[in-house]
Amino acid sequence: MAWRAAIIGATGAVGQEFLKVLEERRFPLSSLKLLASARSAGKSLRFAGQDLVVEELSERSFAGVELVLASAGGSISRKFVPAAVAAGAVVVDNTSAFRMVDGVPLVVPEVNPQDIASHKGIIANPNCSTIVMNVPVWPLHQVNPVRRIVVSTYQAVSGAGAWGMWELAEQIKAFAAGQPVEKKKFPHVIVNNVFSHNSAIADNGYNEEENKMVLETRKIFHCPGLLITATCVRVPVMRAHSEAINLQFTRPMSEGRVREILARAAGVRIVDDRKNNVFPMPLDASSQDDILVGRIRQDISQPDGCGIDLFVSGDQVRKGAALNAVQIAERL
Amino acid sequence: MAWRAAIIGATGAVGQEFLKVLEERRFPLSSLKLLASARSAGKSLRFAGQDLVVEELSERSFAGVELVLASAGGSISRKFVPAAVAAGAVVVDNTSAFRMVDGVPLVVPEVNPQDIASHKGIIANPNCSTIVMNVPVWPLHQVNPVRRIVVSTYQAVSGAGAWGMWELAEQIKAFAAGQPVEKKKFPHVIVNNVFSHNSAIADNGYNEEENKMVLETRKIFHCPGLLITATCVRVPVMRAHSEAINLQFTRPMSEGRVREILARAAGVRIVDDRKNNVFPMPLDASSQDDILVGRIRQDISQPDGCGIDLFVSGDQVRKGAALNAVQIAERL
Repeated sequence: MAWRAAIIGATGAVGQEFLKVLEERRFPLSSLKLLASARSAGKSLRFAGQDLVVEELSERSFAGVELVLASAGGSISRKFVPAAVAAGAVVVDNTSAFRMVDGVPLVVPEVNPQDIASHKGIIANPNCSTIVMNVPVWPLHQVNPVRRIVVSTYQAVSGAGAWGMWELAEQIKAFAAGQPVEKKKFPHVIVNNVFSHNSAIADNGYNEEENKMVLETRKIFHCPGLLITATCVRVPVMRAHSEAINLQFTRPMSEGRVREILARAAGVRIVDDRKNNVFPMPLDASSQDDILVGRIRQDISQPDGCGIDLFVSGDQVRKGAALNAVQIAERL
Repeated sequence: MAWRAAIIGATGAVGQEFLKVLEERRFPLSSLKLLASARSAGKSLRFAGQDLVVEELSERSFAGVELVLASAGGSISRKFVPAAVAAGAVVVDNTSAFRMVDGVPLVVPEVNPQDIASHKGIIANPNCSTIVMNVPVWPLHQVNPVRRIVVSTYQAVSGAGAWGMWELAEQIKAFAAGQPVEKKKFPHVIVNNVFSHNSAIADNGYNEEENKMVLETRKIFHCPGLLITATCVRVPVMRAHSEAINLQFTRPMSEGRVREILARAAGVRIVDDRKNNVFPMPLDASSQDDILVGRIRQDISQPDGCGIDLFVSGDQVRKGAALNAVQIAERL
């Protein structure tokens, strides 16, 4: 079986990665439609040795389309995904539009692939920081349920889209030339700086990104009582998010047991060389499918032996977005 | 009273900051000797309108010196501080050499100034990440004892010394020019990357920097049972360390109470504008005396109301090193 597929947001950072991942994984396609805003229509993008011309996205784009991969922002998905579903397509939506809607499966294939089957036309792809955390934590949670997570993120500018990478690159050039560094779309200068994630602060004092990590993880894990606090921070890194993850398990959990479990977990690669001080880094995680996991150690602040600390890095554009969505589509 | 003083490591990043802070605060000096390695001897440095010539550090450098500010690394302090003490000087040592030695006071002036009086010639200045955490946490701990801290750091390259800033600047230039980015003294590339703090990993799986944050905080707070876990990470920021701090108090603690306490705490400035998304950032903390504190919020993962999350930034070279040491000297 080969799919008649379409990509919404084909010219964005994740859209470009969709093309790469579909080609690399030889995803079975009988046709591929590239959809984007009027501004990008007419551009051509290379895919599997062909030049495909980008078409303007409209509600009439989906005739005959069976599979849609959407990644053009929540408001675009809210507007166009219903039309795609009405036309008979299955949509893997990479935006936050439908993630927390009851009945819409929210899926990390390594965690809850069984949820895919219950879809009614839309399957939501989680937030990138959520995915990077869930892939290594889930196999541990299966063996010894996690009761509480304290996570701090080190998030790349790629999470904001292609413009985020462009803005960091421009600021690096200005700094190197000794010129004044100017912010454009980010609310603060990013080169030589870190700042609290640039999403709105909700009533509970957490920003949207942090609330996504909390609520999405509970839904994906089917664990509404899982306690999570998150602090999401943007760092001057082009691509790949890192996270310091502190875990409290139900029962004592040893470093050795964590290593055993992660060594055979899907989607995870242990990088934990204490002697040479080599641990997960965004530069090494970039363009990799696996989430890199290291700094695995017993948490000395949990004297009951139930605590473990981890540091992880994962490619936000790839496993955090495009790859995860394509892995969902592969299981359809 | 005016001091006959000397600075060990006068040409380093912290040494330069010592000169700035001493001048700005009109520290009472009758003479100032600048000491450094043979390589730097003969250089002249500007201080209070005069050019002072750097002398080579030796065990005979301390005749007539009453106060020494030392910041040239642990091995230099271990070698030369005893000679300074033998010559009758009081040494405020900024290295890790004597911090955990019994009987040597380890002091953050906002926290434990009373410990200064018990010195026997050496007063130790804590690690920079420790100071940045202790200044905002101590006033809260006074009102409602902290039981457990989970901290993740975002540490500037200045923590490695002047060479760290030079190395990041060189890598930024290479990246901007499209040239290969090469590491020199750091174990990994730092531009567009983050990496686990480049100190050795101890038997407990924590690196030296993390163990310092744990052990030093317990000593400074006089609280040997305080539970702390830390993950220390280097980020491509020139100056000023940031930290995501998760606190567990003994009793319920509200956001409002935390704000009240921090608003009148010494050495702290609240930067917590949720509406405009303005929170502590290293660029704003650089060259500031105060530790900036924000993202003050009730931790939703502690349903008993005993949890608070914070995000802080503080100038590592200034309050994290030179200013703290001069504040100690001012209280002598």
